[in-house]
Amino acid sequence: MSTAFRWVEQARVGRARAGHLHTAHGVVPTPTFMPVGTVGTVKAMTMDSVRSTGAGIVLGNTYHLMLRPGAEKVRALGGLHRFMDWPGPILTDSGGFQVMSLGALRKLDQDGVTFNSHIDGSKHRLTPERSTDIQHALDATITMCFDECPALPAPPETIAQSMRLSMRWAARCREAFVPRAGYAQYGIIQGGTEPELRAESVRALTGIGFEGYAIGGLAVGEGQELMYATLDATVPLIPHDSPRYLMGVGTPDDLLGAVERGVDMFDCVMPTRAGRTARAYTERGTLNLRNARHADDTRPLSPHCDCLACTRHSRAYLHHLFRANEILGPMLLTWHNLAYYQRLMRGMRGAIVAGTLGAHAAGLRAEWAMEDWTPDEMPPPDLPPVP
Amino acid sequence: MSTAFRWVEQARVGRARAGHLHTAHGVVPTPTFMPVGTVGTVKAMTMDSVRSTGAGIVLGNTYHLMLRPGAEKVRALGGLHRFMDWPGPILTDSGGFQVMSLGALRKLDQDGVTFNSHIDGSKHRLTPERSTDIQHALDATITMCFDECPALPAPPETIAQSMRLSMRWAARCREAFVPRAGYAQYGIIQGGTEPELRAESVRALTGIGFEGYAIGGLAVGEGQELMYATLDATVPLIPHDSPRYLMGVGTPDDLLGAVERGVDMFDCVMPTRAGRTARAYTERGTLNLRNARHADDTRPLSPHCDCLACTRHSRAYLHHLFRANEILGPMLLTWHNLAYYQRLMRGMRGAIVAGTLGAHAAGLRAEWAMEDWTPDEMPPPDLPPVP
Repeated sequence: MSTAFRWVEQARVGRARAGHLHTAHGVVPTPTFMPVGTVGTVKAMTMDSVRSTGAGIVLGNTYHLMLRPGAEKVRALGGLHRFMDWPGPILTDSGGFQVMSLGALRKLDQDGVTFNSHIDGSKHRLTPERSTDIQHALDATITMCFDECPALPAPPETIAQSMRLSMRWAARCREAFVPRAGYAQYGIIQGGTEPELRAESVRALTGIGFEGYAIGGLAVGEGQELMYATLDATVPLIPHDSPRYLMGVGTPDDLLGAVERGVDMFDCVMPTRAGRTARAYTERGTLNLRNARHADDTRPLSPHCDCLACTRHSRAYLHHLFRANEILGPMLLTWHNLAYYQRLMRGMRGAIVAGTLGAHAAGLRAEWAMEDWTPDEMPPPDLPPVP
Repeated sequence: MSTAFRWVEQARVGRARAGHLHTAHGVVPTPTFMPVGTVGTVKAMTMDSVRSTGAGIVLGNTYHLMLRPGAEKVRALGGLHRFMDWPGPILTDSGGFQVMSLGALRKLDQDGVTFNSHIDGSKHRLTPERSTDIQHALDATITMCFDECPALPAPPETIAQSMRLSMRWAARCREAFVPRAGYAQYGIIQGGTEPELRAESVRALTGIGFEGYAIGGLAVGEGQELMYATLDATVPLIPHDSPRYLMGVGTPDDLLGAVERGVDMFDCVMPTRAGRTARAYTERGTLNLRNARHADDTRPLSPHCDCLACTRHSRAYLHHLFRANEILGPMLLTWHNLAYYQRLMRGMRGAIVAGTLGAHAAGLRAEWAMEDWTPDEMPPPDLPPVP
C-alpha cells in the first residue's frame, strides 16, 4: 500500500485549522499532540494505554536512541515501530536540540557537532547527513532536519548566524533524505523572536521544499507573549497546505494559543513528566497529588475524564500511591495527563470543525482560571460502608 | 447476596487437590497463587493487568496498610477492595511476620508487640485483637491470625514456647473476629520443623475452629527438603474440607512440591520482586534480562506466554528498557512473571482435574532443568526489513 504524505484541510476558524495528516503509517486528525517516547517508550505507559488516550502519533528522540540501543540495532530489530509496539506514525527529532543542550560536552563546527555521551562519556558525531541517516534507520515516518538552536535571549547577530547555519544544514539534510511514499521530512524554521530572521528562514526552507515545517527555537524561556508574537509573524508565511509543527510546546494554554495561530502539531514532555512528579492536569488547572488536602478525597481527579485513574480510583488513592512511592502513582497519573491532553486536542478540533472555536476557547480559559471543583459541583461518590 | 465461605473439592490426585473457594467476593479455583499487593497496589501493575493474568485473589499487608494510609482511612474510603480496585477476594496477613522482622524496633510481650514504624519511627502496638480489628476495617475477605514466628534454626524449646504463645493469641483472634457471610479467618500452624509441635499446633487450632488453616514459619531458611518434610507431617492433619495456605512460598518448584502435598493457596513476592529486578520466569527456568546476550534477541521471553511483554515485545526490547532504567521494564516483566505463575497454577489445576498430575509434574521438572530455547526450538519472528 502506498500513500502520499499530505495534510488535507477539513475546516478553518480564523487562522486555526482542522485537518488530516495522511502517512504511510495511518491518518492522524490535526491539531494533534504527540506524546514523547524518548528512548522507545512513553515513560510509565504501555503502548496500549497510549493508544487508549486517543494519541495518533508519537515522538522518538534521535539523540537518546542513537546512544542506546543504537540506530543500527533498532533497524536490525525491525525499526522503531516494531521495537516499541507503535504501528502508527512516529516523528523523530534530529538530535540537534539535545546535543546543543550538552554544553561543555559538545563542540560545534560548520560541518556538525562532536559530543560526548551523557551515559558513558563515549565520543559521537552528528552531522546533517548522519542525523538524517539515523532517522531513516529508525524508520521514522517524519524525519526532522538537524539544526542548531541558540539559547534565548541572544544578540540578533548570533541568532542570524545560527539560523543561516541551520539553513545550510537543512539543504544537506534534504540531500541526504531518502524519499519514500507516505514518509516526510520537515524543515525547522529558526530565527529566535526576530520576525525578519524568521521570514528569511521560511524563504530558505520553502526554497528547498519540505513536506512540512516546524517552528523551532521557541519555548526556551522567551515567554508566552513573545512566542505568540513570533507565531503571528511566522505561521502565515508557511505554505497553507503544509503541516506546521511547534516543537516542545507546551502547557494547555500554550496549545490553545498556538492552535488559534494555525499550528497543527505539538510535542512536549510536560504531561508525562508531570505525571511522574504527582502533578495532574485538569479542566480547572493543575493539582499536586502529594498535597495532604487530597488524603481523604474520594472523588476522581476530574469529572470529565475516562482514564483508568479517574474511572477507578480516588484522589485519596493517588495521594497514597505517591506518598508510598509506588510505581502505580506515575503510571496512573501519566495516563491521566496524556488523556487530558488528547481530550483537549479533540475538543479544539471539534470546535474548529463546528465553527465554534471562539466560544470554545473562551470556555477553556474561563475554566482554567477557576478553583478546583467544589463538593457541590463534583459530589463524592456513594461508597458502600464496610460492614 | 449471602454466600457461605467454603472450599469444595473438585478432584484429587494423591494428596494434591483441585477445588473452588467460595467467598463473599467471588469464587476462586484452587490451587491458587495470590499476587502480593503490599500497600494497596501490586507493584508496577494496574489491577486490570493483574486480572488479565488470571489471578483470582490478592494479598494485602496489614503492617504496611496500618502505617500508611491507616486502617480507618481505608475503611472511610470504602474498604480495600474499593481503594485498590479489586472487587474480588482479598486475604490480609496479620502484620505479625513484618513486625517480628523489625528486630530492634519491636518489643514482644505476652499480650502483643510494641514497635516503631520503619517509615517515621512513630510508636505503634499490635495485639491479636487490634490486628483482627484492622483486618476487619480493611474489609479483608480472609483475615489471618496474629502470630509470632521465630527465625529458624532455633532450639525446639524456643519454637515450642513461641508456638504456644501463637496458639493463645489464635484463641483471642477468634474471639475478636466478627463473622460475616462469605468471610473467613484462618489459623496459622506454627512449630518450626518439629512434627510433634506442628501436630500440637494443628490440634490447638482445630480445637478453636477456623474456616481455613495456614502453614506459617516455613520458607524462612530451612531449605526445601525440610519444608517438604514438614508439609508431609502437617498437611494430612488439617481437616480435609478446609483450605490450606502455605505462607510466603515460593519458587515454581516449591509450588509444585507443595501442591503435590495438598496445599491449596500460596503467596510470594518472588514474581513481582523479580520483575522489578530484570529476572523473568519461564518454563525453562529464569532469565536475567540485563544480560547482554539478550541485546539482539528478537524472540519473546517464552513461546507459551500470552502476556503483553511476550505478545508484543522482544527480549532485546526488554533488555533495552532495563539498561535504560525505564519504568516500562518492571511493568512488563512483573506482568510476565505473574502471568507465568498463574499459568503454572492453571496447568497444575488442570492436571489434577484430568488425573494426570504425575506426568504433568515430571514434564514441568524436566523442562525447568533444560537450557533456554534454541533458535531451532523457538525461531526468531520474521521482521519486515526497514525500507
